[in-house]
Amino acid sequence: MCLTVAYDGTHYSGWQAQKNAITIAGELNRCLTQLFGESIEVIGASRTDAGVHALGNLAIFDTESPMPADKISYALNQRLPEDIRIQRSEEVASDWHPRRCASRKTYEYRIYCSAFPMPVKRLYSYFTYHSLDAGRMRQAAAHLVGEHDFQSFCQIGAQVSSTVRTIYAVDVEEQGAEMVIRVCGNGFLYNMVRIIAGTLMEVGKGRLRPEDVPGILEAKDRAAAGPTAPAHGLTLVKIETV
Amino acid sequence: MCLTVAYDGTHYSGWQAQKNAITIAGELNRCLTQLFGESIEVIGASRTDAGVHALGNLAIFDTESPMPADKISYALNQRLPEDIRIQRSEEVASDWHPRRCASRKTYEYRIYCSAFPMPVKRLYSYFTYHSLDAGRMRQAAAHLVGEHDFQSFCQIGAQVSSTVRTIYAVDVEEQGAEMVIRVCGNGFLYNMVRIIAGTLMEVGKGRLRPEDVPGILEAKDRAAAGPTAPAHGLTLVKIETV
Repeated sequence: MCLTVAYDGTHYSGWQAQKNAITIAGELNRCLTQLFGESIEVIGASRTDAGVHALGNLAIFDTESPMPADKISYALNQRLPEDIRIQRSEEVASDWHPRRCASRKTYEYRIYCSAFPMPVKRLYSYFTYHSLDAGRMRQAAAHLVGEHDFQSFCQIGAQVSSTVRTIYAVDVEEQGAEMVIRVCGNGFLYNMVRIIAGTLMEVGKGRLRPEDVPGILEAKDRAAAGPTAPAHGLTLVKIETV
Repeated sequence: MCLTVAYDGTHYSGWQAQKNAITIAGELNRCLTQLFGESIEVIGASRTDAGVHALGNLAIFDTESPMPADKISYALNQRLPEDIRIQRSEEVASDWHPRRCASRKTYEYRIYCSAFPMPVKRLYSYFTYHSLDAGRMRQAAAHLVGEHDFQSFCQIGAQVSSTVRTIYAVDVEEQGAEMVIRVCGNGFLYNMVRIIAGTLMEVGKGRLRPEDVPGILEAKDRAAAGPTAPAHGLTLVKIETV
């Protein structure tokens, strides 16, 4: 079974189930186990960090239950806390695994640029009083598109066999005082989108130049890129699998 | 002195100071009194209800303090909780009163229309699984524009000398799955925008016809209009005074 899961990450210690913390997967496991009366543990497509939001993460699990797939979303939403909501539930082959098939993931990083923070934006946008030059940020972003070794954009200590990923598009859109960095790729390293956002903000402030980005990629050194932007500005928008 | 005040109304019992409840004016009074070391009570331009948000409400107060007007916003924001933020502080004549001068107020009512609620929208948009016909809602809204007796759109029991108000514009905008009803007028009766939103939603669902609106106005009876839409979908956007 596959669930499309949306959540407000504000009050959660991230996706991955933990013994002494409340997590998205933990809540899903608890409610699914309650609903079906059998022990269930979901596997997530993206193990988002503490504070990161999602409009459409994916979770798979096996069940013996005869409940029709499309009814599971309604039954589960009645048990889940209001900051987690299933958007869709559907049957998938039992050997299908979202992290083992080709996929296209889209993330958005939101930045609210103004003299003062705006309370209704505070949970889902990173606030900065710096003005950001969107044109420069777009020039910098263009250098990230394509297949590259993104080691400079990966948190130190992350264990991965390869740091090569393909980015299909990076768009920088201005929506009033809000700036949205939309990144679409075939997969992302640990903290990669937040390091991309932090680096593009440095370019937007004039502390880095757009033409510095190729050198940052070539350095294959986390220290060459900008800071990791805070988690609450990040939202996993969707995962398309093929 | 005049403050432009933005807040997330989720955790407040509305604007107006109360003895046993946490309110926006109560928090402003507490922090201003602390900051200036003299007892201060603000007067608000719009006494928003519990749960209603604002991007730009106005509050006036008198002080003996020599602090430059534009510095007050920064000093006050350091003391206020993070869901209240001053956007601007400026000197005004001591006899100026925002409720006694002509003004133009803009409110937005947000509705998230989808099969399932979206967690990151839940605090600022009213959720409905009904699909709404924006075209019909725009036709209905057009009947509200102009000077009318809005008694049918006023909460029963509200004490006002006149229920005549002028609405300059009502726009119905679709932003993806979100619908925004934007109402601009010279003043609003108690719950008026929420009753307008509730009535337009009935039209959008097909339970009322656009051409029913003139009769609802003529009835001068609260029971003729639709239900009062929930507070959390409502945001006071701005108040322009002349």
